Amino acid sequence: MTDDVRNVHDALSAVAEHWQPHRLASINDYDVKVVKLQGEFVWHSHPETDELFLVVSGQLVIQLRDRDVVLNPNDVFVVPRGVEHCPKAVGEVHAILFEPQGTVNTGDVGGDRTAPLRELD
Amino acid sequence: MTDDVRNVHDALSAVAEHWQPHRLASINDYDVKVVKLQGEFVWHSHPETDELFLVVSGQLVIQLRDRDVVLNPNDVFVVPRGVEHCPKAVGEVHAILFEPQGTVNTGDVGGDRTAPLRELD
Repeated sequence: MTDDVRNVHDALSAVAEHWQPHRLASINDYDVKVVKLQGEFVWHSHPETDELFLVVSGQLVIQLRDRDVVLNPNDVFVVPRGVEHCPKAVGEVHAILFEPQGTVNTGDVGGDRTAPLRELD
Repeated sequence: MTDDVRNVHDALSAVAEHWQPHRLASINDYDVKVVKLQGEFVWHSHPETDELFLVVSGQLVIQLRDRDVVLNPNDVFVVPRGVEHCPKAVGEVHAILFEPQGTVNTGDVGGDRTAPLRELD
């Protein structure tokens, strides 16, 4: 639980590195995270959970095996559990993620793009 | 689960009435809702869940019994489970709510401000 007000833009300003989710708030056993994205991530899925993306700025393409989902600012998309996806940021993208606590960014594939959830200062 | 892209502003444009939450997306057994607020709501609490507010536009004051929490655009606040609160919108406020499916807007008090979750067209 976050016990006070957090601002999305201030939080994103405090994030220096790409692909490093930071916790904005928690509700029950879910986390709301802010993240900066640039370039392409890795193909992965989350067998146990859906994953929600809300784009704050920039254009995010969520590549699915059968189509590309293009997200512009204020667009929301939910990747269903078990569905392989590979986010690709066109320029720099600022986004909010909503998912259960403990959800790992690289899902079922792991590897060197795996990043622990970080706390904002 | 919402199976395609939803835009926050388009969704809010489709909402005509105040205090009527509409489902923007679902993730697992949680809903992301958009809502327009104006004036003061009723004092209530949610004994079984935290409730997250993200302000899109306007200024929302979440009155707690011991203080007022003032939220401006892009501010996030989580009302902990069981904590009495009474939202008050200064002018019209557009907001996003995250909470478990089945969470009732008036929580433990019910009454004529209770509104079912509505679907966007």
